[in-house]
Amino acid sequence: MKPVEGRKRVIIEDIEPQVNCGRYPSKRILGDSVSVTAAIFADGHDHVAGRLLFRHEKDRATPSTAIVPLTNDLWSAAFVVDKPGMWHYTLEAWIDHFGTWHADLKKRLAAQENAATDSDSTSQDIPLALRTGAVLLGEAAARAKGADAKLLAKTQATVEQMADQRTNPDGDEFDRLIEIVNRYPDLNFATRYDQKLPLWVDRERARFSTWYELFPRSASTDPSRHGTFADVEALVPEIAAMGFDVLYLPPIHPIGEAFRKGPNNNVVASPGDPGSPWAIGSKDGGHTAIHQQLGTSADFEHLVSIARAHDMELALDIAFQCSPDHPWVTEHPDWFVKRPDGSIQYAENPPKKYQDIYPLNFESPDWRALWQALHDVFDYWIRQGVQIFRVDNPHTKALPFWEWCISEIHKKDPGVIFLAEAFTRPHVMYSLAKAGFTQSYTYFTWRNTGAELQQYFEEITKPPITNFFRPNLWPNTPDILHATLQNGGRAGFMQRVILAATLGANYGIYGPAFELGENRPAKHGSEEYLNSEKYEIRRWDRSANHSLAPLISRLNQIRRENPALQSDGSLHFHPVDNPHILCYSKRSADNLLLVAINLDPVQEQAGWIDLDLKHLGIGHGQSFDVEDLLTGIHYHWHGRSNYVALRPEVLPAHVFRVTPESGGDATKLTAVPAQAETTE
Amino acid sequence: MKPVEGRKRVIIEDIEPQVNCGRYPSKRILGDSVSVTAAIFADGHDHVAGRLLFRHEKDRATPSTAIVPLTNDLWSAAFVVDKPGMWHYTLEAWIDHFGTWHADLKKRLAAQENAATDSDSTSQDIPLALRTGAVLLGEAAARAKGADAKLLAKTQATVEQMADQRTNPDGDEFDRLIEIVNRYPDLNFATRYDQKLPLWVDRERARFSTWYELFPRSASTDPSRHGTFADVEALVPEIAAMGFDVLYLPPIHPIGEAFRKGPNNNVVASPGDPGSPWAIGSKDGGHTAIHQQLGTSADFEHLVSIARAHDMELALDIAFQCSPDHPWVTEHPDWFVKRPDGSIQYAENPPKKYQDIYPLNFESPDWRALWQALHDVFDYWIRQGVQIFRVDNPHTKALPFWEWCISEIHKKDPGVIFLAEAFTRPHVMYSLAKAGFTQSYTYFTWRNTGAELQQYFEEITKPPITNFFRPNLWPNTPDILHATLQNGGRAGFMQRVILAATLGANYGIYGPAFELGENRPAKHGSEEYLNSEKYEIRRWDRSANHSLAPLISRLNQIRRENPALQSDGSLHFHPVDNPHILCYSKRSADNLLLVAINLDPVQEQAGWIDLDLKHLGIGHGQSFDVEDLLTGIHYHWHGRSNYVALRPEVLPAHVFRVTPESGGDATKLTAVPAQAETTE
Repeated sequence: MKPVEGRKRVIIEDIEPQVNCGRYPSKRILGDSVSVTAAIFADGHDHVAGRLLFRHEKDRATPSTAIVPLTNDLWSAAFVVDKPGMWHYTLEAWIDHFGTWHADLKKRLAAQENAATDSDSTSQDIPLALRTGAVLLGEAAARAKGADAKLLAKTQATVEQMADQRTNPDGDEFDRLIEIVNRYPDLNFATRYDQKLPLWVDRERARFSTWYELFPRSASTDPSRHGTFADVEALVPEIAAMGFDVLYLPPIHPIGEAFRKGPNNNVVASPGDPGSPWAIGSKDGGHTAIHQQLGTSADFEHLVSIARAHDMELALDIAFQCSPDHPWVTEHPDWFVKRPDGSIQYAENPPKKYQDIYPLNFESPDWRALWQALHDVFDYWIRQGVQIFRVDNPHTKALPFWEWCISEIHKKDPGVIFLAEAFTRPHVMYSLAKAGFTQSYTYFTWRNTGAELQQYFEEITKPPITNFFRPNLWPNTPDILHATLQNGGRAGFMQRVILAATLGANYGIYGPAFELGENRPAKHGSEEYLNSEKYEIRRWDRSANHSLAPLISRLNQIRRENPALQSDGSLHFHPVDNPHILCYSKRSADNLLLVAINLDPVQEQAGWIDLDLKHLGIGHGQSFDVEDLLTGIHYHWHGRSNYVALRPEVLPAHVFRVTPESGGDATKLTAVPAQAETTE
Repeated sequence: MKPVEGRKRVIIEDIEPQVNCGRYPSKRILGDSVSVTAAIFADGHDHVAGRLLFRHEKDRATPSTAIVPLTNDLWSAAFVVDKPGMWHYTLEAWIDHFGTWHADLKKRLAAQENAATDSDSTSQDIPLALRTGAVLLGEAAARAKGADAKLLAKTQATVEQMADQRTNPDGDEFDRLIEIVNRYPDLNFATRYDQKLPLWVDRERARFSTWYELFPRSASTDPSRHGTFADVEALVPEIAAMGFDVLYLPPIHPIGEAFRKGPNNNVVASPGDPGSPWAIGSKDGGHTAIHQQLGTSADFEHLVSIARAHDMELALDIAFQCSPDHPWVTEHPDWFVKRPDGSIQYAENPPKKYQDIYPLNFESPDWRALWQALHDVFDYWIRQGVQIFRVDNPHTKALPFWEWCISEIHKKDPGVIFLAEAFTRPHVMYSLAKAGFTQSYTYFTWRNTGAELQQYFEEITKPPITNFFRPNLWPNTPDILHATLQNGGRAGFMQRVILAATLGANYGIYGPAFELGENRPAKHGSEEYLNSEKYEIRRWDRSANHSLAPLISRLNQIRRENPALQSDGSLHFHPVDNPHILCYSKRSADNLLLVAINLDPVQEQAGWIDLDLKHLGIGHGQSFDVEDLLTGIHYHWHGRSNYVALRPEVLPAHVFRVTPESGGDATKLTAVPAQAETTE
């Protein structure tokens, strides 16, 4: 069957960015210039022209911008996303008959100039070509508006006159008209790409955030008393001063009594054991209630406001699972799996049993009500002032639920940030991000050698992954005390936090366990903490001399002062002749940072870095100053090979800011085009 | 808005093969086993299962086959395409509750066996698990049919009995049931991929063909007489004996008189000059007429039958352009571009003019009738017995036209082969293949060094390109006499035909110019032939001593006897320490060929080949026989490093058949899984 219009000769394909053929939105940040590329071409030798159309879903207008050719039939255009929320974009292109005519005219004029003899047949060429151009101008004038229409009509008359008078135009005379004519294409023959590709725009914190996790119940300065929101409030100035901007609390809901776990995950709890905050729900309520020992709803709102006063946001941990005492267990037994004996199925990973946890059943016949209730949990806390959620084990809840739930929340409030705490297989990790999670935990914890780190970060900081996935790096969590921390001593902690803070624009620590160097595992070979705060209240001496707080504060200050560290797309690795040393750079406009880190927690390591000067925008003969922002010491470097020696027990890394030296013929770094996915 | 069914927990994505997100069909060959892979996964730890569904468009039934896991959430299944034409395939997957239950049961049994004490709580585990399994078996039995239903119901009863009697099953007892249960999934919760992906299946000649192009008008043995179809008939036995299976003729239609070109593209023709066959149409007719000097329609049909009797097919050149004398010019002036002076626009590439050619206007308001008329040209010749068309300059006709036209032809006759003669930018070349062209001319002619050849062939013989593009290699054409042939002497001709015949399962030559070594360019720096047959009749001495016909015959015989050379997907390059030597292998099941070719047309070149033994399926300690199929000489090789020395004036290449030697512990080559896109 023939198409409705067979004269749409232009083909548009391979549009980037797109995620799964447009099935999921790409992601960008408010203020980003979104660069869109595509292969656009037609049969024959005619020129093509086209435009990128883009629209925020709540806007009426669909602005457009002309595409410009790159190379090899690739075209590009960009638009700035000046509102958070859902955008769509697509491309439209057509044969540029006027541009084709104009290029041919120039060739005809040049040929006539070069011709030895002005044969009779050739002498007809230019006037005839001018008449053809006049027709095209007349058609464009009819489609055009205002001053453009007048200009085109006037030019049409001029060109007809030239043809009558056999006057030759100047070849470049019509150059600027091409763009004007293409503002008014004959869209009957234009090809519109058959999809409007979705693009989700988050606020800036989605790209750059620094998280501090603590257990409120351990926040009391009085060892005999359960910590409260008020105790956390008292810590806010200190944590803010360390440079964190997200204060993240494990679940704050009533904790179940049934099968409550004792210290160190003991299956029997003693009276007075506080239980795990992830065993959610009791007679006092479920996911929208507050554990009474922490405070009231008013106390919580006050904590939110105090955090905000210190330029921090409060993030809540949302764990969609229930203790046997959760109100939903009796109110909605259909939301759980029932066993043949009529009991409710607790969490299991045979032979392990988690009898204090009932998973929700996403195959429930009452799934619609279940989805709504879970959605309403987020909604409730948003109304309490929370805009950031860390979601516990999202990979054990149905992916279609997340896609619906996050999209519903985002319709009302596009500023809400969801961090996916999923440590599972790559496809599932990425699928959660595609389903809408703003940021994601990563395998960073288990990437320890230089080769492992480079391979992994080259994957997760470049397209196509960066179109939908934003890493958030954690050296530790209440669930994960990696062997590098157990065995690496103070150097190990320094290494991991420097890596996290400089490899990832988003990172966080679980404190004060981290800065105080807590490194005792539950048992040999385990990644669980001994005396984990998950099961008991801990008292921390935040003012201990050995605290890494000063280093962390300095790192966070460097992050705030250096835009290069506030996005990930520019990450680039530089070879070092010692595999224990990892070297990488990040840049943003003229802010260029270079990190060299010794990954050996014991031995001093030294080596020669082979800097990719071209990538850094440094000339081969250029000298440059590198200032270690951790120590304030300046070094004078020159050329690609530069030597570093790093003693892990002192400071395992240089975090250099690179500045070209004045003199010579280079006074500033060569500008390198910023990647589309980063904001400058 | 919530989905209609929120319990479809499985995600299916990244299905391969697919071309432009399913916009265009992938291509395969009759008899191929089409391997389909996809990422398939769900939330949590439940097992998944699924099936590949596939259907020929003319069949009612949609058979399916179970998918099997590869690694990292990738799954695969295959189906054999036993009919040419359009197929569609898609995937469906669901949570395998029975398989999940079964795996958990095994863990429970193992845990119980290892348990030091059989605590009361644990002792309940197995019976309860058995009852859960019984429920699943009962549900599956209700969905199942025939013997399967009986078996499942019977097993359900057994399992219930075991639970009653507290008997433990054997862990492996239900292994084979998993597959049976998954034959009857609850499709209410199954995810069906949202597209039926198209797959076009061609007959075998689309994959493996050997073309010989000649000008019928030069086929006369009597120099005073214009060649005829009967003269071509007389050559058929000789060309068939050389091993060609496609005899391809330049346009056979009446040649225009207006602006007829003389010898060497002279703008003035003398009386008696035959003109270019590509200036199509005269008072005697257009694209469905035959140039009278060649013979009648009956003569043509006879030639078709004679070719067929020699296992050859006749291919026609279809050039959609008109001489000013073509009947369409007066019958359908709307199909051409009219200039402002009322004249019809001839072909131009300013300042070059081709006044003997009127291009068709694909922006004609009468495009529907134009499309139909062009389609009907193919249709006419198909009714004359032609099943292969070489299409001249398809890239100067609208791409949507080709997509429609080829699809229309293929609906009636899926065996028709279209070869795209497009030498243009990569996106346009590939887009023609996506639009339906069966085979495509390539840049082979302009890829001459080893590095150029390797880079280009690694692109065009691997997915994603092989999903839609099939190269057809031509060392020469009537339009292209490359400098390698102009300057390379006899060695140059040998090199290029050996490369074409062994790098490409589809290749062709324009003869007898090729085998007779015609190498004189129209002028220095030109790729046109001097005294090109395009403009004059040539007389060739096919029996000349210097003819390369014996070498070409031998190459074609090797191609027929060695399935390895009959497809391209297995092509693999092996490093050589001399850049003048290129080494590559192809294999099909246990047929393994290895080519080493000296690309220097003058000097002997020698070097060490570093064979990729693992790819070849040869053990490191294994000896193997290599027989040069061009000379019959055997060599005894061992290990990865092997020496060759090639004298271009004698024979610039070895075409080895590799056979492992008996003895040792390896008596045959290790089977390497064939690529999906090749037929064994």
